Amino acid sequence: MRKIVKRSDCPISYSLDLLGDKWTMLILRDIAFSDKHFYKDFLEAGEGMATNVLADRLKMLKDYGIIESKQYELNKAKKYYTLTEKGLELVPMIIELWVWGAKHDPQSAVSKDELERRLSKREEIIESYKAKAKG
Amino acid sequence: MRKIVKRSDCPISYSLDLLGDKWTMLILRDIAFSDKHFYKDFLEAGEGMATNVLADRLKMLKDYGIIESKQYELNKAKKYYTLTEKGLELVPMIIELWVWGAKHDPQSAVSKDELERRLSKREEIIESYKAKAKG
Repeated sequence: MRKIVKRSDCPISYSLDLLGDKWTMLILRDIAFSDKHFYKDFLEAGEGMATNVLADRLKMLKDYGIIESKQYELNKAKKYYTLTEKGLELVPMIIELWVWGAKHDPQSAVSKDELERRLSKREEIIESYKAKAKG
Repeated sequence: MRKIVKRSDCPISYSLDLLGDKWTMLILRDIAFSDKHFYKDFLEAGEGMATNVLADRLKMLKDYGIIESKQYELNKAKKYYTLTEKGLELVPMIIELWVWGAKHDPQSAVSKDELERRLSKREEIIESYKAKAKG
């Protein structure tokens, strides 16, 4: 298991030691928001993650109990990844990343109406994504 | 200005292209939560940021309108950094990082009571940090 070097007592620093990396967060996004659960899904997510980076991040996320995997019923050679309870508790933070990006990306594909709609239903959306991310 | 290579249309990916880096987030934490506003404050924050990394991140955050700086009244040679409106809108996300870290860090310095107290007053806390972070 990879040892996280703890740099301070700050809870934010702890979270960032585990999550302060684009690729880690993109994997969590894929599971929580995009209904993706397989290694190949993450690899093909569009942002161009390298295989060694993906393998490393999946291992780290499993080691720290943020995701878990089980044998896929329909194909025993494949692993099916889901978020653990600890991972599901990251959904609100991922939603905040979405909201901020949707609002501030000058080339955002999200309309202002869609953003408003989602903001007004924040709690409902968090619950529905949590349910979905359990897989 | 550093060009951010956009990897997809996803708002989360956009946010991570700018913020998916431990050091960037630690600077934002320092301004938002720790009432730190000077270059030297960030450098001494405890996590051991290198000077070149700090200078790079401050420039990027300014270029993207997340922080701004002005001449410090009491010492014209110093710059006083604050969050812009765009930066203030990151406060809810930083709070989510705090909550998750406080809950899951096995060596967390935050008691369960303190965590519950903060969770029950989330909105109030967000507003008070936003007010403080304006400097």
